[in-house]
Amino acid sequence: MTRRAGRSLLQLPGPTNVPDAVLRALAEPTLDHRGVVFEGIARSVIADVGEVFGTTSPVAIFPASGTGGWEAALVNTLSPGDRVLTCETGFFAAAWTRVAKALGLIVDVIQTDWRRPVDPAAIADALRADIARSIRAVLIVHNETSTGTTSDVAAIRAAMDGARHPALLLVDTVSSLGAMPVEHDAWRVDVTVSASQKGLMLPPGLALLAISQTARTAKLSATLPRSYWDWDPMLAAAGTGAFPYTPASNMIVGLRTSLDLLAAEGMGNVFARHRRHGAMARAAVEHWGLTLLCADPAARSEAVTAVLLPEGIADTAVRRGLLDNFGVTIGGGLGLLKDRCLRIGHLGDVDDLMIISTLAALELELPRHGVDLAPGGVQAAMAVVAAHGMVTAAS
Amino acid sequence: MTRRAGRSLLQLPGPTNVPDAVLRALAEPTLDHRGVVFEGIARSVIADVGEVFGTTSPVAIFPASGTGGWEAALVNTLSPGDRVLTCETGFFAAAWTRVAKALGLIVDVIQTDWRRPVDPAAIADALRADIARSIRAVLIVHNETSTGTTSDVAAIRAAMDGARHPALLLVDTVSSLGAMPVEHDAWRVDVTVSASQKGLMLPPGLALLAISQTARTAKLSATLPRSYWDWDPMLAAAGTGAFPYTPASNMIVGLRTSLDLLAAEGMGNVFARHRRHGAMARAAVEHWGLTLLCADPAARSEAVTAVLLPEGIADTAVRRGLLDNFGVTIGGGLGLLKDRCLRIGHLGDVDDLMIISTLAALELELPRHGVDLAPGGVQAAMAVVAAHGMVTAAS
Amino acid sequence: MTRRAGRSLLQLPGPTNVPDAVLRALAEPTLDHRGVVFEGIARSVIADVGEVFGTTSPVAIFPASGTGGWEAALVNTLSPGDRVLTCETGFFAAAWTRVAKALGLIVDVIQTDWRRPVDPAAIADALRADIARSIRAVLIVHNETSTGTTSDVAAIRAAMDGARHPALLLVDTVSSLGAMPVEHDAWRVDVTVSASQKGLMLPPGLALLAISQTARTAKLSATLPRSYWDWDPMLAAAGTGAFPYTPASNMIVGLRTSLDLLAAEGMGNVFARHRRHGAMARAAVEHWGLTLLCADPAARSEAVTAVLLPEGIADTAVRRGLLDNFGVTIGGGLGLLKDRCLRIGHLGDVDDLMIISTLAALELELPRHGVDLAPGGVQAAMAVVAAHGMVTAAS
Amino acid sequence: MTRRAGRSLLQLPGPTNVPDAVLRALAEPTLDHRGVVFEGIARSVIADVGEVFGTTSPVAIFPASGTGGWEAALVNTLSPGDRVLTCETGFFAAAWTRVAKALGLIVDVIQTDWRRPVDPAAIADALRADIARSIRAVLIVHNETSTGTTSDVAAIRAAMDGARHPALLLVDTVSSLGAMPVEHDAWRVDVTVSASQKGLMLPPGLALLAISQTARTAKLSATLPRSYWDWDPMLAAAGTGAFPYTPASNMIVGLRTSLDLLAAEGMGNVFARHRRHGAMARAAVEHWGLTLLCADPAARSEAVTAVLLPEGIADTAVRRGLLDNFGVTIGGGLGLLKDRCLRIGHLGDVDDLMIISTLAALELELPRHGVDLAPGGVQAAMAVVAAHGMVTAAS
Repeated sequence: MTRRAGRSLLQLPGPTNVPDAVLRALAEPTLDHRGVVFEGIARSVIADVGEVFGTTSPVAIFPASGTGGWEAALVNTLSPGDRVLTCETGFFAAAWTRVAKALGLIVDVIQTDWRRPVDPAAIADALRADIARSIRAVLIVHNETSTGTTSDVAAIRAAMDGARHPALLLVDTVSSLGAMPVEHDAWRVDVTVSASQKGLMLPPGLALLAISQTARTAKLSATLPRSYWDWDPMLAAAGTGAFPYTPASNMIVGLRTSLDLLAAEGMGNVFARHRRHGAMARAAVEHWGLTLLCADPAARSEAVTAVLLPEGIADTAVRRGLLDNFGVTIGGGLGLLKDRCLRIGHLGDVDDLMIISTLAALELELPRHGVDLAPGGVQAAMAVVAAHGMVTAAS
Repeated sequence: MTRRAGRSLLQLPGPTNVPDAVLRALAEPTLDHRGVVFEGIARSVIADVGEVFGTTSPVAIFPASGTGGWEAALVNTLSPGDRVLTCETGFFAAAWTRVAKALGLIVDVIQTDWRRPVDPAAIADALRADIARSIRAVLIVHNETSTGTTSDVAAIRAAMDGARHPALLLVDTVSSLGAMPVEHDAWRVDVTVSASQKGLMLPPGLALLAISQTARTAKLSATLPRSYWDWDPMLAAAGTGAFPYTPASNMIVGLRTSLDLLAAEGMGNVFARHRRHGAMARAAVEHWGLTLLCADPAARSEAVTAVLLPEGIADTAVRRGLLDNFGVTIGGGLGLLKDRCLRIGHLGDVDDLMIISTLAALELELPRHGVDLAPGGVQAAMAVVAAHGMVTAAS
Repeated sequence: MTRRAGRSLLQLPGPTNVPDAVLRALAEPTLDHRGVVFEGIARSVIADVGEVFGTTSPVAIFPASGTGGWEAALVNTLSPGDRVLTCETGFFAAAWTRVAKALGLIVDVIQTDWRRPVDPAAIADALRADIARSIRAVLIVHNETSTGTTSDVAAIRAAMDGARHPALLLVDTVSSLGAMPVEHDAWRVDVTVSASQKGLMLPPGLALLAISQTARTAKLSATLPRSYWDWDPMLAAAGTGAFPYTPASNMIVGLRTSLDLLAAEGMGNVFARHRRHGAMARAAVEHWGLTLLCADPAARSEAVTAVLLPEGIADTAVRRGLLDNFGVTIGGGLGLLKDRCLRIGHLGDVDDLMIISTLAALELELPRHGVDLAPGGVQAAMAVVAAHGMVTAAS
Repeated sequence: MTRRAGRSLLQLPGPTNVPDAVLRALAEPTLDHRGVVFEGIARSVIADVGEVFGTTSPVAIFPASGTGGWEAALVNTLSPGDRVLTCETGFFAAAWTRVAKALGLIVDVIQTDWRRPVDPAAIADALRADIARSIRAVLIVHNETSTGTTSDVAAIRAAMDGARHPALLLVDTVSSLGAMPVEHDAWRVDVTVSASQKGLMLPPGLALLAISQTARTAKLSATLPRSYWDWDPMLAAAGTGAFPYTPASNMIVGLRTSLDLLAAEGMGNVFARHRRHGAMARAAVEHWGLTLLCADPAARSEAVTAVLLPEGIADTAVRRGLLDNFGVTIGGGLGLLKDRCLRIGHLGDVDDLMIISTLAALELELPRHGVDLAPGGVQAAMAVVAAHGMVTAAS
């Protein structure tokens, strides 16, 4: 096959572009996971990753995919036959529901058209209707990766408080952590689930959970069987650096570097960058005259922008053209949205030019597939950059 | 801290020294796990790793530690309250037992003194005594990493056959796979569990399972709750290269390189090398006048040699001295054997000189801790090498 | 210092962006340069790099910067006091002149305003005027890196032929080799000098020379002292893989990978890509209303575009802003052009999106320094891309 | 070809094993060599490498092999027809002589049998006999890599002083710098030449020169033509970080890491380590009953040990066997010693176990080629280690 020169851009809503420094850290010779060097790294990682979660409590780090984090959140807090409430904002909310059902839980689902965030009032209504207080947990996806929609966790927490319902609040932040503010403590989330391959700028392979004291108490009476996902011995590693079974040690060494990079940029700068990139992507899409999937302007994600494709345009062909012609990988539609949308990831280790590149590739590729668009989207995105302050004072 | 020049040797019984080529593969930019490039790699890896397991069936690859593989083997085949039989050959056999109990299984344990392999006759006796055929599975650790003892799986299978008992045979090959012959199909094992960080020469992070048709059938009536560990969608990846949730994709890319390296050496050569290294380690230990933990000469492992320490010698101090003075990491005692033994790993990407180096470090370090030994163990190990044919015809 | 997220672009006219695969090859453990493995690589590299030079003769590869290649071309073919003719097309032509003078040669210089290529007629005139045939060599810079101007070597050769003058033709292709066609044999160049850090996509550290039979004959009577630069033992390496002194062996291993990448893309595709990128850069600059330094449209380089800055704009501040705000490095003015121009490198391992990125950064940064430009240059560059065929047939 | 498992050891007397951290630094993306980041690194490197040379003056760093350093030392200080004095201690002293002759110098050679160091008295005699003071420089190889013999530069300097002769003292420290004390200032050497690929633990590609004020003054009247090798603009880089032509920038970035590693170990520890390794190698060779090439025990090198082979044993076959069977590369005989000796490199990033490994490989391989040796050389080398204090206090 003919080689394509230059670089590739992994503009998925995860996995994201892994910085070279992190790739190099991943390739350090494997350490003795029961030795002092690794244990020191592990302790520091557990301490520092808490800041990204907005928590002062220890974080459990499992050698697993994010899906395992969903399972861990459930098996540590619930018992067979328990009821949970969720809102199907998209593919991943639906997938978490499937996990819950497979584990023997009963799931009440608030449906949506996959184009809007969780409605806190709907949560409150459902909880108020639960006179028996049989709902044990509310499951929320903070940033629905499949639709580019962000739900307001603080508002949901307030709604739950308003309903005076004791259900636990379990939140998936897989594609928001490290890209947008996540406030596990301030929002009083009970379990915040995340993973390594998005805002933490690592390959897939780690599931991370921040856990409230309420959740830890819930575990005392939770009877779902658990062994691998038992979070108590994982939390003990915060003090000892020693894990209950062999950790994904190279990944944890890589996470040390990721956290250093986030700190070197400053979380405020990281969040501002993601906001700017979200604005750039939306400016281009709207300039082109295409439709943003998320129907609620206030809920459009700063990590991923989903674009509805005109009827008859296959996302597969567009994505393949982007890859072959430009080395750009973006996401396609999942589940109900299969073949109906494109998802532009703008999270992780991304800069303005990588966003401009991705948008330029789309502006050049889409017309070749019959998409009628108004040229100038890239220029619109550049205007967003121009409107922001830059680092260097001009001479 | 003062830098130590030169190289470090990770002579644990796992994780093992990861070859540079594999480290480089791990550090390749993360791929789109739903893209054609990754899917092609995934299919080829699943196809080729089967050879190492001695099976023509697909292998399930989970983003998890080997401990997750134990759990997967159980939840896919068993139901709450099922009885299983195991033989406590050491720390890891005991740990699998704990997992089984945590999942709600009843475990019959055949005890040992942690110095010998599973006795097939004892298995047969236990099964024959199970008139009700209530034992659903026999759990065996092929190579007990904590004691340096290898059990004879084929003999255990024959004993089970002789007892005409229908129990499934579940085997942990975490520290034998890729170092010693594993014959999933020929031995008629039902689930063979392994992990990435030993003979497969990768960091920790993948659990792998070879699964018999009998085991797949057992799943149809097994009712332990399962979602993450459900092996059916994992097995589907053999055909599609697509996993049910985000795989540890960089690890799978690394596994592609590991399998290439094993193939380039030839599995016959790989096994012969491990046999030679086991013989070298034992020759040195016996020359020194120290005691091999494994009391059964025929069962001494080709992957790890455990050495009993004289009373009053702390393995921690010896291990620290080896690391500081020589950059060599070996294992210490686990569980009952804590502070009582050293474990020399000789598996994975190791050559004769790395074994000689490890033994030289021990021969130099042990006397500094009050261990009285007969010098010349290194020379004894060299004699083992000299007795084997070498690659190049001498001139 | 605050970290900047994302990637850096080295859009100098050299050194250029080194592909990851080449970086990895450079970091392979150093080989025994007198061993069979390295000698095999060296022979293959010397054989294959000839194709990039358009020659079937062996190429001499020195552990040196390109400047050393200039010196090698002179000391192997000339004697103290010899006259040579050159045309000062820019900074690098002037620098080669300084080298010649430092070595004791007499240099006749045809001046230019640094905004145009070598005029073949001027060369012919100068040679015809040399009745005594005392000019021993003509020194030409194929692609003047400091001005973005390409001279027509074939036309110069024809002019020399027309003048029936026996002078040798020595050509610097440091910034053209691997980016534009170089035809050492077909153009009947006597010595073609190049270096590793441009179209060959390596770091600096290798000087390469293609040498005609006429040049090798000239060496027999050339009396400039030489030892390190003696090309005969270097050329012998084509057969043996053994160099007269320690070669920059990791660089030669890296060059093996570079040549593989060029072959995988196909030299025709490589050249077409550079032509497209030159057109993109010029389209943006002209759209902005800025002035291209090269006054001869036919001679504008496909490897580097130099842009005159309006009076009073310091290139240093612009370049610093590009680096701090966007991670983009471009070149500034050299020599006479110091503080008067910017040089956009578009050679080496570059793709369309990297060019678009570079131009977007300029379009955003220049106005902040008081440069008045017409927005839309990026869009103009995109139009160039759209006008070219792409890899994938649209659906 | 069948893969050999494990690691390779590059126990040449150069190039040496490059530490992983240096390999990674070499593979950092190439920097703008005219940018602030690189210039800062360059200044720090020039400042710090002086300590390794034992000088407070700036060091010139050329993108070249060490052979270029020889040439630079000569062309900056001498004029055509000048006489120089050297002592042919081995292959490299002879090679430097050839360079001097090729550049038009007249060389007076004190011969040796290649088994002993420079005799200071012989130097003094030759200088005293030079009534006309026509000898302009004395050329000495500090550590003769081809024979494993170290000359006493301080004693030579004293002999020159005693002879009251004004000749410059030019010293090759290619294989001693970074392994043994080099005291450019204290020994009053005029030019100390070295290279990157030995004690500095880098690949080949840099020549380094420390230069006395006397040598800089000599340059004012030296008329050998020079351009590339002109050291004045190179020395200016100490202040500016800017080089007169493109530097081998990735190598200089690598050198930054090498210097950091040397500092982290401490030069005193580095030298003590090399002394211990020299003692280990000699202990083994003498135990085997083989003959050390260097006939003067006080002059045996701490960086390389040369061993005479019995008649009829080809070094090529032994070296090939070491490589194929053990992955160990050692040196063979050069020049007059071709096929007559082996050279064991013990310099650079080497630890005790790497020396033991190399000696074990020799002890196993040599008998297969008909070399009759007394087993136990490895044990003798281990005894040398045991006799030295170790890092960790025993418990």
